[in-house]
Amino acid sequence: MSKIPVMEIFGPTIQGEGIVIGQKTMFVRTAGCDYACTWCDSSFTWDGSSKHLIKQMTATEIWHELKNIGGDYFDFVTISGGNPALLKNLGELVTLLKDKKVQTALETQGSKWQDWFKDIDFLTLSPKPPSSQMETDFNKLDEIIAQLEEKQPNLKVVVFNEEDLAYAKKVHLRYPKLSFCLQVGNDDSMTTNNDVLRSNLLAKYEWLLEKTMHDSEFKNIRVLPQLHTYIWGNKRGV
Amino acid sequence: MSKIPVMEIFGPTIQGEGIVIGQKTMFVRTAGCDYACTWCDSSFTWDGSSKHLIKQMTATEIWHELKNIGGDYFDFVTISGGNPALLKNLGELVTLLKDKKVQTALETQGSKWQDWFKDIDFLTLSPKPPSSQMETDFNKLDEIIAQLEEKQPNLKVVVFNEEDLAYAKKVHLRYPKLSFCLQVGNDDSMTTNNDVLRSNLLAKYEWLLEKTMHDSEFKNIRVLPQLHTYIWGNKRGV
Ligand code: SF4
Ligand code: SF4
Repeated sequence: MSKIPVMEIFGPTIQGEGIVIGQKTMFVRTAGCDYACTWCDSSFTWDGSSKHLIKQMTATEIWHELKNIGGDYFDFVTISGGNPALLKNLGELVTLLKDKKVQTALETQGSKWQDWFKDIDFLTLSPKPPSSQMETDFNKLDEIIAQLEEKQPNLKVVVFNEEDLAYAKKVHLRYPKLSFCLQVGNDDSMTTNNDVLRSNLLAKYEWLLEKTMHDSEFKNIRVLPQLHTYIWGNKRGV
Repeated sequence: MSKIPVMEIFGPTIQGEGIVIGQKTMFVRTAGCDYACTWCDSSFTWDGSSKHLIKQMTATEIWHELKNIGGDYFDFVTISGGNPALLKNLGELVTLLKDKKVQTALETQGSKWQDWFKDIDFLTLSPKPPSSQMETDFNKLDEIIAQLEEKQPNLKVVVFNEEDLAYAKKVHLRYPKLSFCLQVGNDDSMTTNNDVLRSNLLAKYEWLLEKTMHDSEFKNIRVLPQLHTYIWGNKRGV
């Protein structure tokens, strides 16, 4: 079996974002990303700062570590990054989890296709808005969504400002049939003052609601905060 | 057309609870309940205190009011109560909304069957735990779930204490195939001190996570707070 670069494995905890928010899950975070979003809240997976923590593991080794930490307490695993879609051989883990009757969720920005996307139970495509300073390749995104025809992914866009919101609308209108989620951006992924963080995020969430509730081009949408940030602030590995 | 007792119609706003948490939706709240839960947060729908606000409306009149308030901003309607399942003729509204290509969600404690349950897109059965002082008729619940075979409902149990949690587990294990959501109970549905309310609810949410994350009988579950209470406190009609 080939090796997968793993940054951290933790849980069980709840999924704090998106379409399965609140789901009890284990997390496997892979290392490496083809983007470098200005506000990336997991930049340690790609900026070299935590390079020493990366472990090269086979799918079987990852499974053993999941069982070692999560015991018999879970039947759901979320794979995140970085961008896990960079890893062709991650398919081995996806297949193994499927064999173990464990449900899977995965998030990627949608810059790269992998055949194993089809085996993910909850695939979230999260293209990045202008504030990230990244450029979305919409042709690639079209291609990925077209290939997933039977098992439709869901979309999530993080919003920091008006420009991001206009981008989010463009994405929503381009793929009107896909389940669509707007998420409040976390401006300050470094602060340890949880009270200030919470009230800032709450204010931003209210702003996002104000902007979207009376907009007829945002109809079938979900608007969500990052639940885990409200609870644990910016703490890692919870 | 026959008349439906309506307590309030409002929105668009977000669904603050359960499986479609964050969904943009209009709300129609019907009057009347066959239960009297001790901690009911919508007791005004059945305790007589807001009797003067009840309007007898046909399905068409409800639709006009929805359009009047919600304009072209919505394509999702959540019906709540009280217990809307008491109303046989609510089926007329459900059919009308279906004709208008509007998605529907409905929550009921599961004490009564209605044929129109089959036409609801997101049906939540929320049997009440011991702290409510109500008694669950599990035979009835079995019957309802059996009748919904093709279009499975989801389950939600509100938890205030250990006894409620044991009850929730019983429900989850009885219907292992149904999507299951645990929700933090709001002890204090009267306070207007939102900061205190928020920190109390946060502490309770953390307690609920502690209790469930390392329990192998709670596997495929979601654990959620009431989002709207975090944002707006106990304010009505938002
Ligand atoms: S795509 Fe995701 S992991 Fe990569 S830089 Fe952007 S936010 Fe960070
Ligand atoms: S079933 Fe619902 S509406 Fe009826 S009393 Fe209980 S909490 Fe209130």
